[in-house]
Amino acid sequence: MPDTVTPPPAAQQPAAQPASVTTGPIAGSRKVWSSPACRPDIRVPFREIALHPTANEPPLCLYDTSGPYTDPAAKIDLEAGLAPLRAPWLAARGLARVDARAVRPEDNGHATGEHLVAPCPAGHPLLGGVAGRPVTQMEFARAGIITEEMIYVAHRENLGRTAAAAQAAELRADGESFGAAIPTFVTPEFVRAEIAAGRAIIPANINHPEQEPVVIGRNFLVKINANIGNSAVTSSAAEEVEKMVWAIRWGADTIMDLSTGRNIHNIRSWILRNAPVPVGTVPIYQALEKVGGDPDKLDWEVFKDTLIEQAEQGVDYFTIHAGVRLAHVPLTARRVTGIVSRGGSIMAGWCLARHRESFLYEHFDEICDIMRRYDVSFSLGDGLRPGSNADANDAAQFAELDTLGELTKIAWGKGCQVMIEGPGHVPMHKVKENMDRQLATCGEAPFYTLGPLVTDVAPGYDHITSAIGAAMIGWFGTAMLCYVTPKEHLGLPDRDDVKTGVITYRIAAHAADLAKGHPLARLHDDAISRARFEFRWEDQFNLGLDPDTARAFHDETMPKEAHKVAHFCSMCGPKFCAMKISQDVRDEAARQEGMAAKSTEFREHGSEIYLPAAEDD
Amino acid sequence: MPDTVTPPPAAQQPAAQPASVTTGPIAGSRKVWSSPACRPDIRVPFREIALHPTANEPPLCLYDTSGPYTDPAAKIDLEAGLAPLRAPWLAARGLARVDARAVRPEDNGHATGEHLVAPCPAGHPLLGGVAGRPVTQMEFARAGIITEEMIYVAHRENLGRTAAAAQAAELRADGESFGAAIPTFVTPEFVRAEIAAGRAIIPANINHPEQEPVVIGRNFLVKINANIGNSAVTSSAAEEVEKMVWAIRWGADTIMDLSTGRNIHNIRSWILRNAPVPVGTVPIYQALEKVGGDPDKLDWEVFKDTLIEQAEQGVDYFTIHAGVRLAHVPLTARRVTGIVSRGGSIMAGWCLARHRESFLYEHFDEICDIMRRYDVSFSLGDGLRPGSNADANDAAQFAELDTLGELTKIAWGKGCQVMIEGPGHVPMHKVKENMDRQLATCGEAPFYTLGPLVTDVAPGYDHITSAIGAAMIGWFGTAMLCYVTPKEHLGLPDRDDVKTGVITYRIAAHAADLAKGHPLARLHDDAISRARFEFRWEDQFNLGLDPDTARAFHDETMPKEAHKVAHFCSMCGPKFCAMKISQDVRDEAARQEGMAAKSTEFREHGSEIYLPAAEDD
Repeated sequence: MPDTVTPPPAAQQPAAQPASVTTGPIAGSRKVWSSPACRPDIRVPFREIALHPTANEPPLCLYDTSGPYTDPAAKIDLEAGLAPLRAPWLAARGLARVDARAVRPEDNGHATGEHLVAPCPAGHPLLGGVAGRPVTQMEFARAGIITEEMIYVAHRENLGRTAAAAQAAELRADGESFGAAIPTFVTPEFVRAEIAAGRAIIPANINHPEQEPVVIGRNFLVKINANIGNSAVTSSAAEEVEKMVWAIRWGADTIMDLSTGRNIHNIRSWILRNAPVPVGTVPIYQALEKVGGDPDKLDWEVFKDTLIEQAEQGVDYFTIHAGVRLAHVPLTARRVTGIVSRGGSIMAGWCLARHRESFLYEHFDEICDIMRRYDVSFSLGDGLRPGSNADANDAAQFAELDTLGELTKIAWGKGCQVMIEGPGHVPMHKVKENMDRQLATCGEAPFYTLGPLVTDVAPGYDHITSAIGAAMIGWFGTAMLCYVTPKEHLGLPDRDDVKTGVITYRIAAHAADLAKGHPLARLHDDAISRARFEFRWEDQFNLGLDPDTARAFHDETMPKEAHKVAHFCSMCGPKFCAMKISQDVRDEAARQEGMAAKSTEFREHGSEIYLPAAEDD
Repeated sequence: MPDTVTPPPAAQQPAAQPASVTTGPIAGSRKVWSSPACRPDIRVPFREIALHPTANEPPLCLYDTSGPYTDPAAKIDLEAGLAPLRAPWLAARGLARVDARAVRPEDNGHATGEHLVAPCPAGHPLLGGVAGRPVTQMEFARAGIITEEMIYVAHRENLGRTAAAAQAAELRADGESFGAAIPTFVTPEFVRAEIAAGRAIIPANINHPEQEPVVIGRNFLVKINANIGNSAVTSSAAEEVEKMVWAIRWGADTIMDLSTGRNIHNIRSWILRNAPVPVGTVPIYQALEKVGGDPDKLDWEVFKDTLIEQAEQGVDYFTIHAGVRLAHVPLTARRVTGIVSRGGSIMAGWCLARHRESFLYEHFDEICDIMRRYDVSFSLGDGLRPGSNADANDAAQFAELDTLGELTKIAWGKGCQVMIEGPGHVPMHKVKENMDRQLATCGEAPFYTLGPLVTDVAPGYDHITSAIGAAMIGWFGTAMLCYVTPKEHLGLPDRDDVKTGVITYRIAAHAADLAKGHPLARLHDDAISRARFEFRWEDQFNLGLDPDTARAFHDETMPKEAHKVAHFCSMCGPKFCAMKISQDVRDEAARQEGMAAKSTEFREHGSEIYLPAAEDD
């Protein structure tokens, strides 16, 4: 079990400071760093799993989303925040120092006195882009400039391999990519070209220097997002920071803070200053808080103010529901489940009450200008996504998608990075149409989907109903999958639910990578399969997505340490084991064939039986 | 929570009698029966869920696998066994009364004295088919005779609807069936024709009269199987019967008893006499027990004896690994995980040790004769299925499949019913090839797959890795999905694991039905979606696959009874709720449009906004 860091009980400790966050390495793993040859100053973290000596294999290197929290040498101080990794890169870009917008009482829901959560004391120089100089990753990419973020993510996507190593590995990947073009080796130039084309984004606000950059696009590893957030009823800042740390520990590539209610500005400051992953938000939620929860009172001014507030704090991507237009609302009339997106229903309510066009749509140019200034990426929201299989792929959904395609081009024209949100609830036979239409309509901008859930009948198990759809749509080309927890439709996820959701979505994303033919994906499967076949139990646990659960499940039936090297397991017992018999078959064959000499003979005659043991891997 | 039946502590109570099994209805459901118009004496059970009066909907009728255990009026007496539902049907078929094979000490692993579990005292007349008269469902089907079992399953597949009701419902199903031809209404004649063609089976041993018949085929609802079984280390007869009752409670259509070790004959007698579902076994496991666990000592005689022993007990289908031929074994040489099927590795070991052809393959004709006599269906085993993604769709696997196709035709020639087992571990992009090849090679005999698991990296979560593959292959045409529990690869499933596995596979099977366009599948999704949209919380729980878990998850955040009628939930809180806003939007639209009159006007002009509330469903 991981250790926890408990900050000292200092006298002026703000009320909001988290009591503890989970630290320490994942069981059987250690954090390592490596640097691309061109930039030894850029250190990219990975998770390395050493194998049992009998495996005669080098350690396996995996992608690591967990940030400094899994580094035993890191000093975690939530008040100080994480080290600003990107600060030197940003300092060299000629960005302007800007004056901060003053915090207003409504930013924290007018909380005062003991009800007010103190902000995170950590700060950073507040930066803003200027006209005529590139600020967004897309602007740099189009100008032919490779940023440090691009170098970072290229090395990260390669799992630290050099070009020579990638070539030498002769990876056996195969797959059906549906038009994706995943290179064997990712160069910074490849990343740049993908971002310039709009096919990938690096969501990295210039005011979030603590972030370890992540690339999201169809030609890269599939990413996953975990939603966190307090609710009006429960949660504190302490819990929210720990939820983030917990979610990235198990593999969330980004997190979205969907908090509502009081103190959200200050809680967000704790999350951002301690987040090594991109953080997304849905600004309309806070805007609605500022007008007392009544959608009719929303207007462009309060929304604009909220965008600036959150952009200055360092939020990396905003969900903007600008595709919910007045004309689309009647298209939802015959739906079984109407409008289920919170943002979508707010905007539909606003449009209908005033009988006028959405202010998000009308002010989209200005939204772009704000988001460009800080390099906040768009996540164009699917406010009209289906809330049931019955409503999947209907006129309302696809009318909105057409509008999102139109807005994508406007945002690109302004230099902004864009991804597109997708459904929702979709039966399997309608999943692919979502991907195909999105690619065609939105110019291959990265797709970011919630599931989709392939059936509506399993409340309590919607991590599973949605993982089926998520794996499929990830295979078809979705770049990032938003997780769904077992509590979906029923309540707020707790710690166990968040972990279950994240692991389930790591499964979906990895299954998608495998099926797409990502050249590195198979390495992980093959390593664990060899461990399984060779009864290297500890290796099997450590190579699993969740070593703690794998070990605990094994130990329920066979707790003794001796069993972890036993050449049998509890399913069959010692007398009778398929894997053991299979190994015996292999040995017997080798014996009968007279080992190496015979093997060579057979190879020459094209009827190979069993290779010598040393070649079996 | 369900009640449990505890038998009275009688003096001569055998040691093996289960202490208790789970009884009582699933929360929110009641058992109902209906009969096809042509045969009022045939009563088919269903699970009916009454909805809240505000729903203004009739109760929803679902398929019910749970047997008498969920009928509060049923008297459950495990010693007496279940009522022999099929006895009058079987009595009219001119079957022979045969003398029972005497039980031998090795049948129970030479257990004696206090170590010997007593057999279930319930008995039945031992029947056997005679030459020249039809005995198997396939023989009846080919003779143009519709059996009671065919009538039963037709009504069951229709969920009790009449042809007129099915026609009147104008079901909105759509889908991509990949060549499956699912009728809107299933007639007994359709069932007969499917069985005659080999495209479906009703696994129903004439010595299992307690069974409620089930049809397995591509043009019917997708079925699921749950494996139970003691291991050498743990379990008792009591636990095994309760595992069966528990698995069918949550939706297992069939169960397989994979027990090994002592007392398996007598434990099986308890399971069969109390099983309302078809029961499958893998006879080679018991045959191996009889020769002390050494595959080399196996021979045709001991295997044949085991077939007869289990067929007389009433086992409905046998996994027979006759496709593992001597020539196939070398094809596994380069595999990452060799041979992972227990049966497959036993047979491969036998072939290799003796360097001769499999006795199962050589005696296949005789096996057919025995299975025909009792109408035991074949489940032709995939002993060379891949145990890792790396080995998927390889030469060994497909060589075996070719042999299974050859054996299918032989079995059909003998009048036997056949299904074909499939993998295993297969990445998503290789799943469809499995289905396509199986259909082509095995003449459309029903496919019965284990998962497949679409990635190897998640021990502890293989119910999920496999549900992804299972949903897909079910969509593509697999007739029955064998569940995988969270303990796969790690240990023995406990009660919670069995339930999780079954619910997960109900999700996969239902998702497949939806995607195939099964005309009844959408009814369930639409009912729960309407309940969700209308905040009918109790209905949402009761309509879920697992009402207990849905309710418990909801109550963790909002335990009060009042919240179950509240028009909000814990995700957004009372002020701010997408579904509520969406309903407000609908109301507002209705108000603005002046209700029905305006609605008509709009309809005439082709720009419908919102229908009056009564039509919203």
